[in-house]
Amino acid sequence: EMPPKPARLGLCAACHGEHGMAQIPGAPNLAGQRLDYLREALRQYRDGRRNVALMKAAIGPISDEELDQLARWYSAQTPVAPRP
Amino acid sequence: EMPPKPARLGLCAACHGEHGMAQIPGAPNLAGQRLDYLREALRQYRDGRRNVALMKAAIGPISDEELDQLARWYSAQTPVAPRP
Repeated sequence: EMPPKPARLGLCAACHGEHGMAQIPGAPNLAGQRLDYLREALRQYRDGRRNVALMKAAIGPISDEELDQLARWYSAQTPVAPRP
Repeated sequence: EMPPKPARLGLCAACHGEHGMAQIPGAPNLAGQRLDYLREALRQYRDGRRNVALMKAAIGPISDEELDQLARWYSAQTPVAPRP
């Protein structure tokens, strides 16, 4: 079952794609990533434990609930095979 | 074309799986991840810019060439859909 589309998805999607396939070099694919990993990574970026200025700025002062919605969205996406 | 299996794959595989699907909570899937992202993440772990003691210990004093082999291996794997 696909989770509801998070309200804050647009900013994430600029680099990670709406469906979790990266749009730019340097950004990771997120589609199908483990939910626990995504949730913890987002918290670490927000709290500065994972020190990436771009991600801290992009995430901002987001609530745990909003982080959870984003993690659930991307974890639920299906990875797309790269073009040959 | 599948890259050759890296000599150091065994230690990575204990958590990330031989084919890049995580074996334990907290470890990310790596299958099909972008090559540039994996390569840079490994360098950051090795050099301490991404400060995760377990990963620094696991990677050790590895050469750029060995890092590249590991990144190529995992990037070339195909993600497996989760069990329903």
